[in-house]
Amino acid sequence: MPASLATYVADNQNRFLAELEEFLRIPSISTSPDHVADVRRAAEFVAAQLTAAGLENVEIIETERHPLVYADWLHAPGKPTVLCYGHYDVQPPDPLELWHTAPFEPTIRDGNLYARGSADDKGQMYMHIKAIEALHALHDGKLPLNVKFLIEGEEEVGGASISKYVPANQEKLKADVALVSDTALYAEGIPTLCIGLRGLIYMEVECTGPARDLHSGLYGGAAPNAVFGLVEMLSRAKTPDGVIQVPGIYDDVANPDPAELESWKGLPFSEADFLAKEVGSTQLTGEAAYSVLERTWSRPTMEVHGIAGGFTGAGAKTVIPAKATAKVSFRLVPNQNPEKVIEGFREFLKANTPAGCTVSLKVLSGGPAIVVNPQHPAIACAAEVFGEELGRPTVFTRSGGSIPIVGEFATYLGIPTVLMGFGLPDDGLHSPNEKYCLANYYTGIRTIARFFERYGA
Amino acid sequence: MPASLATYVADNQNRFLAELEEFLRIPSISTSPDHVADVRRAAEFVAAQLTAAGLENVEIIETERHPLVYADWLHAPGKPTVLCYGHYDVQPPDPLELWHTAPFEPTIRDGNLYARGSADDKGQMYMHIKAIEALHALHDGKLPLNVKFLIEGEEEVGGASISKYVPANQEKLKADVALVSDTALYAEGIPTLCIGLRGLIYMEVECTGPARDLHSGLYGGAAPNAVFGLVEMLSRAKTPDGVIQVPGIYDDVANPDPAELESWKGLPFSEADFLAKEVGSTQLTGEAAYSVLERTWSRPTMEVHGIAGGFTGAGAKTVIPAKATAKVSFRLVPNQNPEKVIEGFREFLKANTPAGCTVSLKVLSGGPAIVVNPQHPAIACAAEVFGEELGRPTVFTRSGGSIPIVGEFATYLGIPTVLMGFGLPDDGLHSPNEKYCLANYYTGIRTIARFFERYGA
Repeated sequence: MPASLATYVADNQNRFLAELEEFLRIPSISTSPDHVADVRRAAEFVAAQLTAAGLENVEIIETERHPLVYADWLHAPGKPTVLCYGHYDVQPPDPLELWHTAPFEPTIRDGNLYARGSADDKGQMYMHIKAIEALHALHDGKLPLNVKFLIEGEEEVGGASISKYVPANQEKLKADVALVSDTALYAEGIPTLCIGLRGLIYMEVECTGPARDLHSGLYGGAAPNAVFGLVEMLSRAKTPDGVIQVPGIYDDVANPDPAELESWKGLPFSEADFLAKEVGSTQLTGEAAYSVLERTWSRPTMEVHGIAGGFTGAGAKTVIPAKATAKVSFRLVPNQNPEKVIEGFREFLKANTPAGCTVSLKVLSGGPAIVVNPQHPAIACAAEVFGEELGRPTVFTRSGGSIPIVGEFATYLGIPTVLMGFGLPDDGLHSPNEKYCLANYYTGIRTIARFFERYGA
Repeated sequence: MPASLATYVADNQNRFLAELEEFLRIPSISTSPDHVADVRRAAEFVAAQLTAAGLENVEIIETERHPLVYADWLHAPGKPTVLCYGHYDVQPPDPLELWHTAPFEPTIRDGNLYARGSADDKGQMYMHIKAIEALHALHDGKLPLNVKFLIEGEEEVGGASISKYVPANQEKLKADVALVSDTALYAEGIPTLCIGLRGLIYMEVECTGPARDLHSGLYGGAAPNAVFGLVEMLSRAKTPDGVIQVPGIYDDVANPDPAELESWKGLPFSEADFLAKEVGSTQLTGEAAYSVLERTWSRPTMEVHGIAGGFTGAGAKTVIPAKATAKVSFRLVPNQNPEKVIEGFREFLKANTPAGCTVSLKVLSGGPAIVVNPQHPAIACAAEVFGEELGRPTVFTRSGGSIPIVGEFATYLGIPTVLMGFGLPDDGLHSPNEKYCLANYYTGIRTIARFFERYGA
């Protein structure tokens, strides 16, 4: 069967490419009011392709914003059910002038397909549909297991609709495992399964000093300054070495087990390249007792994403600002409870509010870290076929980022997620000249189809 | 002579009011490109009134922006020369909707004249002209001393033209003392001479971390954050009690002498009112060992006027910002050298640059503090007549603010300035419903004329 799967993909790869190009030509920019119709057109394209691949109960689900697309095939009794997730919306292409070719006119150069959404996530999501098509064709209209598809059009704008839909449709979405391909290989040629994601709490801190902006000549020395008050508070939340000072924040941190830490040491990683090619600062920072991979994958962090207050125009204005705000987040690692961390941060702010100031905290979102057991049968199957396809053992990594839908599948459906993506670290997601490696597109279709076969065997 | 001076002012006060109203109807908003012609019209009004008052050599001096107006009367050999300074430009009236009556339609309510510029500075500057008119009329076309007038139209936009004109025209502007009325009584009915102004150094601090904004999930824990770096640095520049940590900053501070400090204790001042009615915060701040007047008048201070960096829009964006900037100033007190303080701050930034960050400092302006000896004959005369007119002894105060022209007169002309203004603390300079107390307008004209007489006697 692998042989004929490979043959099927090889025989049809020109059509697979042409279809993906058609998909990429739709500028389904979910954040733009000018592209609402394009976003819907992309949803309709997905629905039509799901039908063509042999899926059933294909449905365009209306939401308050952009539609969800659902489909299933449930005729393999006794076999596991996989819930395939992806998104058909894309980021805006700005800044347009930095693209070498038009963002919505897919172009092939050096084996890569350049277009907005090629990797994130149209190209990766479309592999799932083509894997089903291949299996459907090769197995006379049957699939080796049960599948459900849930594809959203708001991933780039916060995913509000799917976040409402999942908890409200737990029975309909019931599955044994979810499959998400919106991730990347650790490096070219290395089969990679991501088994851990950090959680995220995102907040706004507002500091108020005087009732209105005051003249710094007349009041400087006696009136509190909201910007300086915010600066004082934030500076105390983390040491220069990156150790967070929020009470209790490290109490529940679950460290990776020694075997996982050991495996990370085997991953190709150059701190010098990371500094020079990716970060571009004078040196790296953070907790000295931990490696860079540990600091970014398995340690909680605190960041200030933005700060604003007072006069920031050209020239000079001598005000003592009345208000200042900052966007602050914590990345969480397994076993940390977001509510408890938020509570700790509230305590911290209360204990550190500067004299004369008042502080308020607004929590925009909060989700825990995710960690998946690599012994889970679906993960184990995925690791096997991935390693076989790429000819070397699969590595298990984590990501310092957060994929909220994975947390929602865990919370509301009680299922783990196989994070098996075929992107590359330099694909330029959200950037000009986003690309997807065509070889990985075809490899991905084969690997995903083989995963369905192996997991359904 | 005082009797007939009082009579002259009383007899002419309706005309004095009508002329000021005409002046106030000209919307001479110096910052607005739409009002360039109005600003010139105000300059021409001033020139015409100087001529009408009996002054000579009246000149509208072209500059790169708005004209200066010069005039003099120099026929009192052996008598001192007073250089009268004021400005005919005004702040924009925004926000317009908060004005109870139109800002450029002067309106009298409860003995106050409401209009933009009524106190700052048209009403106060016009008193000088009317005082000259009165003396000219009462002394048969002669004045008791020599006077020069230099009136600018850029005070509200930084005063660049006068700052060039003064050093280039030292001989022409030569005088024994300058007279500036762009100040206020300490409180209603209290004759007040301001004999000290703090200096000001205004700077921009920029902190750079990574080469571009980074994803906080993927890099958080290992990459420097420019906003947090700036926050760390600024927080170390001042203790929570307001003690500045810049090396050497207190070395040269000259404290007020015990008699001056003692006199401040006699000024009516309610810390509770200052907190509740002016500052509006939960408590006052600053160096605990000093009174509020000392903290705002005779102690150096550091303020952050504004801060900006990273993502500050609505919602959440998880960036590690590449750049952040802050506007920072120091207020200086007598004997502090601005260059030395800037050098100390450079050292401080160098010593406190966070790991992975780079910092740059841009100095926008720097001027020293000013202090005037109350024993100076002009100040002593002014104090006498001011006290006689208001029926109680003149108090000597300082201001925590800065008036750059006073520093320029000291530096380039080598003369002290009599800061004798008739505004009130609640006149609302730069705010909606700016007002000037009409009784103070007439008192001011009398007091200034009597000051000229006494100083020329």
